[in-house]
Amino acid sequence: MESISIGLLGLGTVGAGVVKIIENHQDKLAHQIGCPVKVKKALVQDLEKDRGLAIEDGILTLDPEDVLADPEIDIVVEVMGGIEATKEHLLEALKNKKHVVTANKDLMAVHGPELLKAASANECDLFYEASVAGGIPILRGLVDGLASDRITKMMGIVNGTTNFILTKMTKEGRTFDDVLKEAQDLGFAEADPTADVGGLDAARKMAIMSTLGFSMNVDLSDVKVKGITDVTAEDIEYAGQFGYTMKLIGYAHRDGEKVEVSVEPALLPNEHPLSSVNDEYNAVYVYGEAVGETMFYGPGAGSLPTATAVVSDMVCTMKNMRLGVTGKSAVNPQFEKKLKEREEISSQYFLRLHVQDEIGVLAKLTSIFSNHGVSFEKILQNPLNGAGYSEIVLVTHKASLDHYEDILMELKDYHAIHSIESSYRVEGGEKG
Amino acid sequence: MESISIGLLGLGTVGAGVVKIIENHQDKLAHQIGCPVKVKKALVQDLEKDRGLAIEDGILTLDPEDVLADPEIDIVVEVMGGIEATKEHLLEALKNKKHVVTANKDLMAVHGPELLKAASANECDLFYEASVAGGIPILRGLVDGLASDRITKMMGIVNGTTNFILTKMTKEGRTFDDVLKEAQDLGFAEADPTADVGGLDAARKMAIMSTLGFSMNVDLSDVKVKGITDVTAEDIEYAGQFGYTMKLIGYAHRDGEKVEVSVEPALLPNEHPLSSVNDEYNAVYVYGEAVGETMFYGPGAGSLPTATAVVSDMVCTMKNMRLGVTGKSAVNPQFEKKLKEREEISSQYFLRLHVQDEIGVLAKLTSIFSNHGVSFEKILQNPLNGAGYSEIVLVTHKASLDHYEDILMELKDYHAIHSIESSYRVEGGEKG
Repeated sequence: MESISIGLLGLGTVGAGVVKIIENHQDKLAHQIGCPVKVKKALVQDLEKDRGLAIEDGILTLDPEDVLADPEIDIVVEVMGGIEATKEHLLEALKNKKHVVTANKDLMAVHGPELLKAASANECDLFYEASVAGGIPILRGLVDGLASDRITKMMGIVNGTTNFILTKMTKEGRTFDDVLKEAQDLGFAEADPTADVGGLDAARKMAIMSTLGFSMNVDLSDVKVKGITDVTAEDIEYAGQFGYTMKLIGYAHRDGEKVEVSVEPALLPNEHPLSSVNDEYNAVYVYGEAVGETMFYGPGAGSLPTATAVVSDMVCTMKNMRLGVTGKSAVNPQFEKKLKEREEISSQYFLRLHVQDEIGVLAKLTSIFSNHGVSFEKILQNPLNGAGYSEIVLVTHKASLDHYEDILMELKDYHAIHSIESSYRVEGGEKG
Repeated sequence: MESISIGLLGLGTVGAGVVKIIENHQDKLAHQIGCPVKVKKALVQDLEKDRGLAIEDGILTLDPEDVLADPEIDIVVEVMGGIEATKEHLLEALKNKKHVVTANKDLMAVHGPELLKAASANECDLFYEASVAGGIPILRGLVDGLASDRITKMMGIVNGTTNFILTKMTKEGRTFDDVLKEAQDLGFAEADPTADVGGLDAARKMAIMSTLGFSMNVDLSDVKVKGITDVTAEDIEYAGQFGYTMKLIGYAHRDGEKVEVSVEPALLPNEHPLSSVNDEYNAVYVYGEAVGETMFYGPGAGSLPTATAVVSDMVCTMKNMRLGVTGKSAVNPQFEKKLKEREEISSQYFLRLHVQDEIGVLAKLTSIFSNHGVSFEKILQNPLNGAGYSEIVLVTHKASLDHYEDILMELKDYHAIHSIESSYRVEGGEKG
C-alpha cells in the first residue's frame, strides 16, 4: 500500500480532532503502519463553516456517496451521530468493502450486532472504542486485556456531564438546577441535557460494555435507567455523613448465567476507587474472578480525547489491512442473554423518610423491615424544627429488590410516614 | 488446529495461576480461539512438591529440553524468573519456532530488545504484559489504546510492597522498619526486600514502559533509582500538612526529543489520581498530548492477577497463530534514545532542614535560594523543643535539578544549617 485513505462522515468537534491528530502524528502513524495516512473526503452539512482547520480544496462534500462509493477510500470514520440514516450509510460502506470506525454509542447500543454481522460478512473491520468513555481504552481492556478472565462486575462513571454536576453539588452543597445552569454556561452540558441527566447516554455505554464484558447481546432496552434530576443536596449531605459519595453509576453484574444492568444515582463507600473520580472525568471499575479489581480512568469526552480513540482504532484496522486479516477481530457473543428477575437483584439501600413525631414510629418502622428479613446497617433520626415530624435516614444491609420494594409499599400505607423523600442503591461495599 | 499446547517454564505461584485459569476458563478460551488449550509440559525444580494443583502424570519435568524441544508445544510460558540462563532458554524456544509469553520484568528490562529481535526473526510472538503491573493491561494500553497519541508523561505506582509500606506509614504514623516487618509477616514483602524497597523492581518496570511509551530503547541503567528506606514518619507528616501524599513514583517524562526516567519517593498533591492508590495496589498515570490524563489501576502482583495477564497474552498469540500473522505485533522503536541532562530536569522540591536558632538564618536561607533563581511555594518553621535549633520545611516552585543541587551544596557549607533531614521531588502539580 502506498497510502491509506480515510473518508469522514461528519466534521464536528470529534471529526476535527481526528484531522488534527492525523496531521500532528503523521510520523508516528507512518512508523507503525508503514505508509502515510490521508483524509480524502469529509461529508459535511455546510461547506463554508469555519472549523478552525486548514482543509485542502475538494475534500469537503455534501454528498454521502462521495465517501461511501469512492473506491480509493479504505476506511470510513463515522463521527456524524444519528441512528437510522447513519446505520444505512455504514451498511453501504461495509458492502463496498470499506472498514468502519465509529464513535457513535447511540448507534452501536441499538444496531451494534447487525453492523458487526455485516462487517464480518464483508471481511471488514468495525471498531468503536470511542463510543464508550472517550479517550479511555476500556473496550480493548475488556476484550484483549481481560480476555482470559471471567468478568463478574462492571461499574462505570461514564457520563461526564452528570459527574461534573454531582461533583459540584457534593463539594459546594449546591442544588441540581443551579449547577446544571453553570455546566451549560461552561459548555459541559448541552442546551438540552435530557440524555445526559436522564441517564440514557450512560445506559447506551453500559449496553455496549455489558455485551462485550459478559459476551451476550445486552440491548439498550435491557438497561434499567434512572437519572439524577431528583438528587438533592440533602441526600448528598446525609450520604457524606454516612461515609458515602453519590455518583451516577452504570452497574452491570453477573451472577452465574444471569445479568443485571442499570444506570442510577447510587452511593459508594468513600474508599471505593470510583468515589474519587471527580468533575467531568470518567472511569470504569471492572471486577474479574482472577484479576480482582481494576479501574480505567480518563477523559470521557472532548474533541481530542475521543479522536485519540478513533485514530487508535484506525491504526488497528490499518495493521490488519497490511496483514490481510481484517474482519476477524470481533468475537460473537458466547452466551444467550439471561436477565436477572427482581428477586435475584440484591443491594444495600439508602432511604430518607419524613415521619410523624409519635411514640412507637421507629419500632413500627423496624418491624416492617424485619418482617421482610431486612435489617439496618446505619440509622439516624433528626427532628425537623417546627415541621411536627422527624427525618429518618437509614442504610439497610443487603436485601433483595422485591423485598425492598414490598417494604416501600408498606411504608407508603403506614399513616405515620409523612413522605418517602429519597431512596438509592448503595453499591461497591462488596468487590466481586 | 485441533488444540494448542503450552509448555511452562516454572510452576510457582504465577505458573499455578496460569494452570488454574486455563482449567477454569477453558470454555471462554475455546470460544475465542476456536480450539482447546492444554498444558503439555511444565519445567520444575522438584517433582514432588505440593502445588495445590491436580497435575496429570507426565507433565512435570526437570529437563528444560522437554519443553524447549518438544515439537508439539506451540507456546512457551516463562514464569521461572532469572535473567541469563532464562534468556538462553527463550532464545532456544524462539529458534524452535515457539511463541513466548513471559512475566519476567528483570529479563525484559535487560534483554528485551534482543529477545524481541529474535522473536521477529523467527516470525514468533513475544508478549510480556504480565511483566509490568501484574493484572493491569497497561502495556496494551500504551501500544494499542494510545497508538495514535504522543505520550509525554508516565507516572507509576508499580511496586505493591512499597505502596503497602508507605500507605501504612501514612495512615498509621508508623516507621519504615516497623511496617516492613508487618509486610514480611503478611507475605506482602520478601524475606530479602532489597529489590522492592530499594526501587530496583519499579525501575525495571519503568524501563519497559518507557521503551514502549516513548518508542525508544530505555535501559535499566538509564533509570535513576532511589528507594524508600530513608523515608521517615516526619516527612510523611509534614507532606500531609502541606497537602501532599508520599508515594514511590516511577517517573518518565519526555520534553521534545529528550527523556528522563527515575524511581524515587516523591510527593504528589492529594487531589492527584495516584494519591488515592493505596495498600498493595498499583496504578499507572499516563499523559498524552491528545488524550490528556488517563490512569490504569489494579493489582500489581499476585498469582491469579499476574496469570490473567499471561493467559491474555496467550490468547493474543493464539489468535495470531490462527490468522497466520505471528511475529508482526512488535513495533521497533521509532526514536534514538536521548536522555535529559541535569539542567534539563526540573521539578518542585520538598526540603526539611534543622537550623540553628540564630537571627538572620531565614533571611540567609532565602537569599541562597533566590541567588539561584528559586523561590518558595510553601515554608514552615517549627521550634524543636530543647534541641537549640528549629525545623524548617519548605516546598520550592519549579526549579532545575542543577540549580537545586547547587543550593543543597551551599546549604551544607552554611554553618547555621545543622542538618539536611530530607529532600524529595514534588510531582503531579502539572499535568503534561
